[in-house]
Amino acid sequence: MAQKWRKTFEEERSRLNEIVTSGGHLGIKRFFALDEQAYHAGALSSKTKELLGLVASLVLRCDDCISYHLIKCKDEGVTDEEFYEAFNIALVAGGSIVVPHLRRAAERLELL
Amino acid sequence: MAQKWRKTFEEERSRLNEIVTSGGHLGIKRFFALDEQAYHAGALSSKTKELLGLVASLVLRCDDCISYHLIKCKDEGVTDEEFYEAFNIALVAGGSIVVPHLRRAAERLELL
Amino acid sequence: MAQKWRKTFEEERSRLNEIVTSGGHLGIKRFFALDEQAYHAGALSSKTKELLGLVASLVLRCDDCISYHLIKCKDEGVTDEEFYEAFNIALVAGGSIVVPHLRRAAERLELL
Amino acid sequence: MAQKWRKTFEEERSRLNEIVTSGGHLGIKRFFALDEQAYHAGALSSKTKELLGLVASLVLRCDDCISYHLIKCKDEGVTDEEFYEAFNIALVAGGSIVVPHLRRAAERLELL
Amino acid sequence: MAQKWRKTFEEERSRLNEIVTSGGHLGIKRFFALDEQAYHAGALSSKTKELLGLVASLVLRCDDCISYHLIKCKDEGVTDEEFYEAFNIALVAGGSIVVPHLRRAAERLELL
Amino acid sequence: MAQKWRKTFEEERSRLNEIVTSGGHLGIKRFFALDEQAYHAGALSSKTKELLGLVASLVLRCDDCISYHLIKCKDEGVTDEEFYEAFNIALVAGGSIVVPHLRRAAERLELL
Repeated sequence: MAQKWRKTFEEERSRLNEIVTSGGHLGIKRFFALDEQAYHAGALSSKTKELLGLVASLVLRCDDCISYHLIKCKDEGVTDEEFYEAFNIALVAGGSIVVPHLRRAAERLELL
Repeated sequence: MAQKWRKTFEEERSRLNEIVTSGGHLGIKRFFALDEQAYHAGALSSKTKELLGLVASLVLRCDDCISYHLIKCKDEGVTDEEFYEAFNIALVAGGSIVVPHLRRAAERLELL
Repeated sequence: MAQKWRKTFEEERSRLNEIVTSGGHLGIKRFFALDEQAYHAGALSSKTKELLGLVASLVLRCDDCISYHLIKCKDEGVTDEEFYEAFNIALVAGGSIVVPHLRRAAERLELL
Repeated sequence: MAQKWRKTFEEERSRLNEIVTSGGHLGIKRFFALDEQAYHAGALSSKTKELLGLVASLVLRCDDCISYHLIKCKDEGVTDEEFYEAFNIALVAGGSIVVPHLRRAAERLELL
Repeated sequence: MAQKWRKTFEEERSRLNEIVTSGGHLGIKRFFALDEQAYHAGALSSKTKELLGLVASLVLRCDDCISYHLIKCKDEGVTDEEFYEAFNIALVAGGSIVVPHLRRAAERLELL
Repeated sequence: MAQKWRKTFEEERSRLNEIVTSGGHLGIKRFFALDEQAYHAGALSSKTKELLGLVASLVLRCDDCISYHLIKCKDEGVTDEEFYEAFNIALVAGGSIVVPHLRRAAERLELL
């Protein structure tokens, strides 16, 4: 079931991204490139950067963004204990309004 | 159908809360406790506090949070007229961007 | 399929709006009237105003509001090139957190 | 000093409101009227409604709106204990990002 | 006084932008370029695009962004009547929480 | 001047925190404790956690919160290159609406 959730999520994301880029707007394509590059390893590791992306997504309350960074963090080797410490920071910073997103994130984390 | 919606909502909420708390993070557990205690009767009644939680949830546009406080408000005896006056404050404060959440809240209110 | 999506969206919106207005709150009815009048042609054309509503909905990340203004913009004759220039402004102003909404908007635009 | 802060705040607010309404836009004037009427006593008391406005302003993090509803709440007889219970709900719902606004609200409350 | 406000705002903005770009991060420089290009005339006119930027800034409640787009809109020939129609859309979409920003925008508009 | 900015910021923060805690609300005191503990070293280092707090503060656009985490990050040894990579993630995730906060953060960083 884990692999199924991830596969469905990633395929749907790719399918919709192709619709957006088929619109042919150069600025949007460049934005997508900047977005991807922001998480490449530099002075900060990719792992740290993906955690930054995860917490930003949690406090801004965007489920799709949370799913994306959960997967990336998992691939970077983030442990469950590290995930929950990041979840806690997002929860304290963003408040109980973050809780429904945190619940869904915790469920998806179990599927990864 | 009313009881079905409420039951489904509360069971799913409990199921996911258990996943979160099974993560074992003490800070998160304490946050959940603070969140619950914030709505206990004190100088302000539980009814007033649940209305505060409802309006906060509406202007922050969180459907799950709105559902939760709708149920709590109903249990505290909030009348339809009182609900709509609170809805109106959330609508004027938060703007038309609140409307889709207000629509769903109004429908769920009929189910309670 | 295009007509089906639009029809389903508009019927559901009408059904829920009727529930809200059946609540009988005068302030809410007046707010709904103000909301509609805000997009009537004046010094700015309806087309420009619907584009303003679309970008506001995108940066505030409300899928229902985006769908509504997408339809209205299409009816006002907004071209695909114009839509993507508006999408780009919303993306740059609101950041990658807008992307999931932009993806769904681009898909719905293809259905119109 | 208390009266001075309140007087300065209210005079500046009136001065700027006059600039906005001198713009002559009927929709804006009507919105201002709806905003004021939303807090009139009805099924819910003005005191409860002003508390709803205060918590909405806190979680949406708008200092001017917080100041306005602090004054209104004070005039409605909200006690310090009640203020702090409302502050706590806003803090838990909105998270630590609310804290700087809460600090300024607590200071202004001492001046009232 | 008008020219003084605009000059002070633009000089401070330039001074701080130089500090940011002196940080030497390529991604940030590219983002700044994308941000500027988003408002260049294309299928939509610069005037329409600046109005989109103004409304986005109002509903996201960012005073500096509002000031920037107010100036740009004025340079593109936006009339007072057009400004107020855009203000009204932002107000209805974003709610009374936008009002303090609208007040300051209306005052700055008089200075331009 | 650097030391002066930091000293002024920290003294004002302490002064206002004392006003809040003098309100005597137990829930608020506990929230403040949870907030502080969230950044203690655990599975993730304090440095990583402060960076998470900084990016959360940037995308939520809270200047006081940004200042606080800038100082904490600096004390944890975050380098300028690391700061700018974190700034870039916040900028891409949160959009140009973050820029005014980024400008002020970059200026304050020079003062530290």
